[in-house]
Amino acid sequence: MARIVVIGAGAAGISAASTAKQYDRSLEVTLIGDLAHTAYSPCGIPYVFGREVASFDDLFLQKSEFYTEEIGLDLRLSTFVERIDMASRTVEMGGGERLPFDRLILCTGWQYVLPEIPGIELEGIHFVKDIDRAREIDRALDGVDSVVVWKARPVGLELATGLAHRGKQVTVIDEEPWLLAEFADPDVMQMGQESLEKLGVRFLLSTRLRELKGRDGRLVSAITAPGEIACQMAFMAADQKPDTRLARQIGVRLGSAGGIVVDDAMRTNVADVFAAGAVVETPQAIAEVPVRLMPGTYAYTQGRVAGANAAGDERHYRAVHVPWAMEVGTTQVGGVLITETLARALGRPYIIGEAKGISCARYHPKVEPMRVKMLADPATREVIGIQFAGGDGVKERADFMAFAMRKHATIDELATMENVYSPPIGALNEPIAVAARNAVAAAAGK
Amino acid sequence: MARIVVIGAGAAGISAASTAKQYDRSLEVTLIGDLAHTAYSPCGIPYVFGREVASFDDLFLQKSEFYTEEIGLDLRLSTFVERIDMASRTVEMGGGERLPFDRLILCTGWQYVLPEIPGIELEGIHFVKDIDRAREIDRALDGVDSVVVWKARPVGLELATGLAHRGKQVTVIDEEPWLLAEFADPDVMQMGQESLEKLGVRFLLSTRLRELKGRDGRLVSAITAPGEIACQMAFMAADQKPDTRLARQIGVRLGSAGGIVVDDAMRTNVADVFAAGAVVETPQAIAEVPVRLMPGTYAYTQGRVAGANAAGDERHYRAVHVPWAMEVGTTQVGGVLITETLARALGRPYIIGEAKGISCARYHPKVEPMRVKMLADPATREVIGIQFAGGDGVKERADFMAFAMRKHATIDELATMENVYSPPIGALNEPIAVAARNAVAAAAGK
Repeated sequence: MARIVVIGAGAAGISAASTAKQYDRSLEVTLIGDLAHTAYSPCGIPYVFGREVASFDDLFLQKSEFYTEEIGLDLRLSTFVERIDMASRTVEMGGGERLPFDRLILCTGWQYVLPEIPGIELEGIHFVKDIDRAREIDRALDGVDSVVVWKARPVGLELATGLAHRGKQVTVIDEEPWLLAEFADPDVMQMGQESLEKLGVRFLLSTRLRELKGRDGRLVSAITAPGEIACQMAFMAADQKPDTRLARQIGVRLGSAGGIVVDDAMRTNVADVFAAGAVVETPQAIAEVPVRLMPGTYAYTQGRVAGANAAGDERHYRAVHVPWAMEVGTTQVGGVLITETLARALGRPYIIGEAKGISCARYHPKVEPMRVKMLADPATREVIGIQFAGGDGVKERADFMAFAMRKHATIDELATMENVYSPPIGALNEPIAVAARNAVAAAAGK
Repeated sequence: MARIVVIGAGAAGISAASTAKQYDRSLEVTLIGDLAHTAYSPCGIPYVFGREVASFDDLFLQKSEFYTEEIGLDLRLSTFVERIDMASRTVEMGGGERLPFDRLILCTGWQYVLPEIPGIELEGIHFVKDIDRAREIDRALDGVDSVVVWKARPVGLELATGLAHRGKQVTVIDEEPWLLAEFADPDVMQMGQESLEKLGVRFLLSTRLRELKGRDGRLVSAITAPGEIACQMAFMAADQKPDTRLARQIGVRLGSAGGIVVDDAMRTNVADVFAAGAVVETPQAIAEVPVRLMPGTYAYTQGRVAGANAAGDERHYRAVHVPWAMEVGTTQVGGVLITETLARALGRPYIIGEAKGISCARYHPKVEPMRVKMLADPATREVIGIQFAGGDGVKERADFMAFAMRKHATIDELATMENVYSPPIGALNEPIAVAARNAVAAAAGK
């Protein structure tokens, strides 16, 4: 009987282990996680802080018993893996127990990089990740008036939105001059910033967080060049790096972004070792640079492929475009790389088609703006990036465009795309089509 | 100076005339309409009846002066065209005035077919189309308790939704066994029917409307086999036919669906005569049957192509997939032809992939169902039809799939589509991808 060991019980690990067992019930599949829980949605934490989601209990997809009894996994939680020995094909756990394997799947995820900011060790400074810590933070939040969020990255903006909803005075500090600078251009993000400002969030952009000041070991303020911000809590949306400690032990090859390099079957360079989730990196199709730390949906998908293949199947999948979207305040933003900022940095020629569209008939009370910024290659006329800001429907449009870009859609094809018109749900002119028509005009030099 | 005459001042006509004039300001462009108004959205009428949109005045896009003064059109409203003389290239209007033209664009739209139902001439029976008549109906609605809607077609269901919102007792009568039978399958439409039933709408399906009964010339009830329904108003979502009276006079070729046949430049078979909007028909890509009376968005798009080409440009466009979507009660439904019903009728082989998905994270309070039914060709594995029922995002998904079908997307490609995951706006598993994966499994005989 073949034995599969999956290390890491996050989204990728749970999906890999379950898929392997379901593919071949005769396999012995062990899933090892260092935390006390599995199968919950860490992405939901900011929404519980914001009281949009009622309870942390809601974030659990399944109880552990589901995986042990229904799926039939050998589940080891709160278990730390010390080392892997490829010669004897065993995993050595804390306490000395050794577990043999025939195939191994590394789903070891990511870790925060501790920023070098004086005072970073003070009580009241949080790096949101684990649900048990989140429960504690949530209780402590009741006694807090003012919070600082460091870095206007996705999790930082989700926290800023949630904490503003909860009535906290929120200050976002970032050295970048605009929000989500890695994914979006400043002109598109303006609407998101304004939406958060309407909720009372204050932004200190192009601003370095110099120091976190404490009294009796507890955070009391954040120091920046423009001044000192009194705060009882700080949330650090710090850099995240793939947790490759175990991978490096056994000679698994890492890429230029620091993640594990896998082929489209999620195989590493080491025989019988697979990897999936936030620990791997994959080349983004347009930018042609490796990306890592993609949203949870990729972890599940990659986990399924890794699990099935480790169990003997031959599946293929490689994420390449990575559509993204989120709520920032009450505005939705999203898109598919590359941005204008990145195109310039890469020295890549581009034309732009913009649209200030609407989400449904202009006379309908539900009407919301839907801004589009489309980038295309002037030679091939293929779309090479898109960004949205507006009301409902950003996520669906980002999915659409990621697929269209995979199919090498041109601005000419999108300019003549067909669209639904129905007063309460769809405008006469689909904003994507308007942006494409404007890109066609831009290409013609009009 | 060349002269262009556009007949019909609906969406296609206004778009054709404006585009022609904007393409070449030296042209003399006359737009003739038989009603007193132009440039309003007739599609908005049911929403004013339902008080979702405050006033009929909101439905006007522009005043007539915009078209005469800003665009520079010669606008003739409340003007009936008696005949066209191709020998002298003149249009003869009511009253005998003759207008010469070099190029002609027929945008004569559609008319209701008067159904052969005894009592159809009674007061209180309405065919919704013109905004002035709609204002009168709206006033009369205040004194009405019970209304009948004949046929569960798009406009019928929009009216049923709006009138239920307004507190009227609504009964929908249709000979078809389910709602929107031309566009959707019964399993998908069940959710829409239930949504309307929750609003208090009663359905008499598979039921013939035998007679409309009156007293003193006014409607008092509708007679069906199951019984008599007391009602003070009836809205007839009757058959609609292209208004080809003028086209036939000058030998313009009509197609099997009764509409004008045009090429992809919107040219008819008669030299210098173009046509656009509801009066034309065009082959649907999958069903390979001509469709006509498409939503207003096609009228605008076709009008732009016809107007530009009549003015000397060379543009091309042909609608082929026709995505549709609408609100039925509080449920959104939509899709792209063909349906399972139609596939069977055409004797076309198909496989089905279904999904009972959700619109965002299952624990988020905004979560709504998103049901998907996907049809694919078992040989090519290309998608040949899709239907949706659920919450927000149906219109965007229908647009997406119409484009994907134009790009010959397969179930394998859609099964590995990338999707946004963000708790308040996107679920871990995009319902389209789930349906595609289930279609892949169905194709493998699983």
